[in-house]
Amino acid sequence: MATPILVSFIGSGNLAWHLAPALDNMGYVIREVYSQNPNHAEALTKRLYQAEIKASLDFSTSDSKVFIMAVSDDAIADIAREIILPEDAILVHTSGSQPITELQFAATQNLGVFYPLQTFSKSKKIDFKEVPVFIESQTEEAEEILMQLAHSLSKEVRKIGSDERKALHVAAVFASNFSNHMLTIAKEIMQQNSLDYEWLKPLITETINKSMYLGPDQAQTGPAKRADLEILDSHLEFLKEQQPIAEIYKVISQHIIDSHYEG
Amino acid sequence: MATPILVSFIGSGNLAWHLAPALDNMGYVIREVYSQNPNHAEALTKRLYQAEIKASLDFSTSDSKVFIMAVSDDAIADIAREIILPEDAILVHTSGSQPITELQFAATQNLGVFYPLQTFSKSKKIDFKEVPVFIESQTEEAEEILMQLAHSLSKEVRKIGSDERKALHVAAVFASNFSNHMLTIAKEIMQQNSLDYEWLKPLITETINKSMYLGPDQAQTGPAKRADLEILDSHLEFLKEQQPIAEIYKVISQHIIDSHYEG
Repeated sequence: MATPILVSFIGSGNLAWHLAPALDNMGYVIREVYSQNPNHAEALTKRLYQAEIKASLDFSTSDSKVFIMAVSDDAIADIAREIILPEDAILVHTSGSQPITELQFAATQNLGVFYPLQTFSKSKKIDFKEVPVFIESQTEEAEEILMQLAHSLSKEVRKIGSDERKALHVAAVFASNFSNHMLTIAKEIMQQNSLDYEWLKPLITETINKSMYLGPDQAQTGPAKRADLEILDSHLEFLKEQQPIAEIYKVISQHIIDSHYEG
Repeated sequence: MATPILVSFIGSGNLAWHLAPALDNMGYVIREVYSQNPNHAEALTKRLYQAEIKASLDFSTSDSKVFIMAVSDDAIADIAREIILPEDAILVHTSGSQPITELQFAATQNLGVFYPLQTFSKSKKIDFKEVPVFIESQTEEAEEILMQLAHSLSKEVRKIGSDERKALHVAAVFASNFSNHMLTIAKEIMQQNSLDYEWLKPLITETINKSMYLGPDQAQTGPAKRADLEILDSHLEFLKEQQPIAEIYKVISQHIIDSHYEG
């Protein structure tokens, strides 16, 4: 890179925690970090080569080119309205569910979306090469620079619109948040019955390996897949003191039965 | 082994398909395979060194010691009643959900349960060393022989009672069948929106890796975890033409919110 692109972050949550250092390591310069929580901003700047903590959303004197909002979805529109940017700045959000129009009241037309499809937690390192990045942009300049950022991080970069990105995000909630929550419930049931959660780990590993290998539809097994109503009833009876979990058991089992025996 | 233990299988489904050859390979001798579906019985005997197809449940002249029922849960009691066994035979079932008493009307007291905790599909090979096996038995002789079989297959063998095994099975349904079904729904949503399911695979892999590393409760992310009601509503709106999936989205999200913000 001839002149490095300067970048500022708004937000210091799980995504910023991984994305800012990853860009830093690829030769971009992270100049500033703003966060509602100054302690979080400080912790993140410590992971970066030359970033400073920013106390307000007035970036009028900033020399950054790209402003990446890694904030909760409901904060995007407000911050876009409030933020004061230098001339020709590019403002992007990183949300799967929010359309690019969420940024429309910002004082720039140089708008974009930079959506890395992954689950980020501060305590688990991420290899960005394996994280697909989805780009949307309102200007050619924004597209060019976001594509450059994305390609230097990831081997899988796609341009998609806001509607497709939303569908992708809903699918991702099932694939990641909900599949993980099934493991949380499994762990709870094991603990409530003084059984060792470790015993389930080979099953979990094989379930995912098989699902990747055969496809999840072909990999399905279990009493609902076999429409074994007697077992389903006995499991619901077992869960009768825990209505929310019984309800989850019921609606998922019904959907498995319907997918295999109808349509 | 001095004199090999002779084993017969009743059933030729996904479990028998993997368990019978695994025992065969460990030096046990699978003598007979009975199945309601003679074609399935024939296919399984072809995977075995010297097994024969058995046309009825009359095993009175069999020289086998152990009779393993790998059948659907609702068939166990009927087969236990009908099967005619040689003297001192050990009869076991392989079900997670059925108690050992499901075998009580069999013409032997040498009863047991041999429950390998794994998801089995015919088209995906299984390494039994990594499959925990759970044993229950009604006599010392049954226990001794089932422990021998289990230890020669697996590095993780436990004795547990029928109630614990049922809890384990309910937990396994969440950990395996339901987590896999979340991936099936994700794939459907991707396909309905002409998006490539492959894009979700790094997310799925990382979700499970992180869940194993941090524990599923610590690994949880997503809009429900953040109680982001605006996103939850917009996702439900997105799913409004698909009520069963919207219903699943709703009950799981509610349970994630409740787990993180109550109690």
